[in-house]
Amino acid sequence: MKVGFIGLGIMGKPMARHLINGGHTVYLFSRSGVTQDMIDAGGKSCTNAKDVAHNADVIITMVPDTPDVEKVLFGRDGVAAGLSTDHGTGKIVVDMSSISPIETKQFAARINKMQCEYIDAPVSGGEVGAKNAALTIMCGGSEAAFAKVMPLFDLLGKNITLVGGVGSGQTCKVANQIIVALTIEAVGEALLFASKAGADPARVRQALMGGFANSRILEVHGERMVKRTFTPGFRIELHQKDLNLALSGARALGISLPNTATAQELFNSCVAHGGAAWDHSAMVRALEMMANHEVAKAA
Amino acid sequence: MKVGFIGLGIMGKPMARHLINGGHTVYLFSRSGVTQDMIDAGGKSCTNAKDVAHNADVIITMVPDTPDVEKVLFGRDGVAAGLSTDHGTGKIVVDMSSISPIETKQFAARINKMQCEYIDAPVSGGEVGAKNAALTIMCGGSEAAFAKVMPLFDLLGKNITLVGGVGSGQTCKVANQIIVALTIEAVGEALLFASKAGADPARVRQALMGGFANSRILEVHGERMVKRTFTPGFRIELHQKDLNLALSGARALGISLPNTATAQELFNSCVAHGGAAWDHSAMVRALEMMANHEVAKAA
Repeated sequence: MKVGFIGLGIMGKPMARHLINGGHTVYLFSRSGVTQDMIDAGGKSCTNAKDVAHNADVIITMVPDTPDVEKVLFGRDGVAAGLSTDHGTGKIVVDMSSISPIETKQFAARINKMQCEYIDAPVSGGEVGAKNAALTIMCGGSEAAFAKVMPLFDLLGKNITLVGGVGSGQTCKVANQIIVALTIEAVGEALLFASKAGADPARVRQALMGGFANSRILEVHGERMVKRTFTPGFRIELHQKDLNLALSGARALGISLPNTATAQELFNSCVAHGGAAWDHSAMVRALEMMANHEVAKAA
Repeated sequence: MKVGFIGLGIMGKPMARHLINGGHTVYLFSRSGVTQDMIDAGGKSCTNAKDVAHNADVIITMVPDTPDVEKVLFGRDGVAAGLSTDHGTGKIVVDMSSISPIETKQFAARINKMQCEYIDAPVSGGEVGAKNAALTIMCGGSEAAFAKVMPLFDLLGKNITLVGGVGSGQTCKVANQIIVALTIEAVGEALLFASKAGADPARVRQALMGGFANSRILEVHGERMVKRTFTPGFRIELHQKDLNLALSGARALGISLPNTATAQELFNSCVAHGGAAWDHSAMVRALEMMANHEVAKAA
């Protein structure tokens, strides 16, 4: 398949490489340039996103945030320009960035008007998941388009779900980030309470893992809180971006997310103390600062 | 073993029966009287808690709340009176109620002064767990006393942990209830966001179960929210009691639990709408009322 890949950051680079290794012709573009190792691996370097869209039948974008997607799709020398010059009917744009579900629907509508398909397919699993081709991929779009790009997703991830129509992938990713943040917060409150009350938080975590309170977060991030290993992992500044999507989305939709709001404030407090690059499990530090007590102190 | 069992409610009755069936001599007392079926099963009815403590070597209490434990232990004709008249040195008081970890330490100190041991051993698993002898039991106390009563716990539960010294069992139970309530809240916010944004919450739940956001709560209570099955289960009014232990404990300890506070307010809102006996997963209804949108509406 002729595949375009735009955005060769920490996530995008290993993903593009999996597609090349999977035997596809992969046209590459990145604002910071295409590195020589990607060309040596067999990738085709393009001068802009328009050039990528001109050459490829499926164009994947993997950039940081909503405005970046908008720029790469609809800006000067962007994907849309490449689709139109090519009379690109039937091409598929796949946005794997994590961005606003609401603006995603607008982007999709503009792409659809050009007789092209749009799939939103944000991922979870981070750098490790990207390198190991073990990403979870949450997709929104038509079943027909999803079926066409499924062979590409198979090279990138393991848990691949078509959640619903366009925007549903991004919506699912936001839901994921709400649950992850709020479960970190829950484990933080519980372990802080236990520690301050004089119990050993490591043994409390162990006891709770046998019951209804168990979760992947309690296992992985509960251990981080007890052992104080706050090297990322997933950086707080990235999770802040995701909770911003949740909170601005909630406002636009007219719903209230009280604990997401609190979790964001706790992240903000961490950043105020220099923690933008701490692992997101370090949210517990904001609770600890309020309480003037550390989870690990009682251990 | 000569065992006393005080409190024969929904939980206590099947638990006492397991001890009788396990071959122990079980002395029974309940404020509402000992029913004939328990006597037919082989239980020995006593006229008060003092009488139970006089006859038994291990005295188990299973009553609703902190003041109930205080009354049954130290009130007129209470356990303490039975321990002292009997020169009860070496007897063990096991409180399996879910009560304040802070007052538990005071109760234990008073019992210890009588040369008796005290173990706090609250459970999770509810009525089903009690009937099936599958309770999770979280214990605080000395290793020696814990070893002595372990054969009794084995007849009642499956996941039995000595978390630490006296009070650690109750502390662990409170931590458990914080995480359970806050994870329910997290799943509620996530599914409400997804539904209002136009995604099918059932498919979002399914997709999230494959990843880092997964938990027993997402599996069990996420399904309840989607299918609207809010028959208990575990009643909101009971979880309110537990979060009150968390919040009053936090205040006494000088720590802040912001999302536990919000979760309690959401439970309060459910109760205001007649939901004291709803399953605790119905906390999502309070979020739905604020948003004027139901999770299941988009499905």
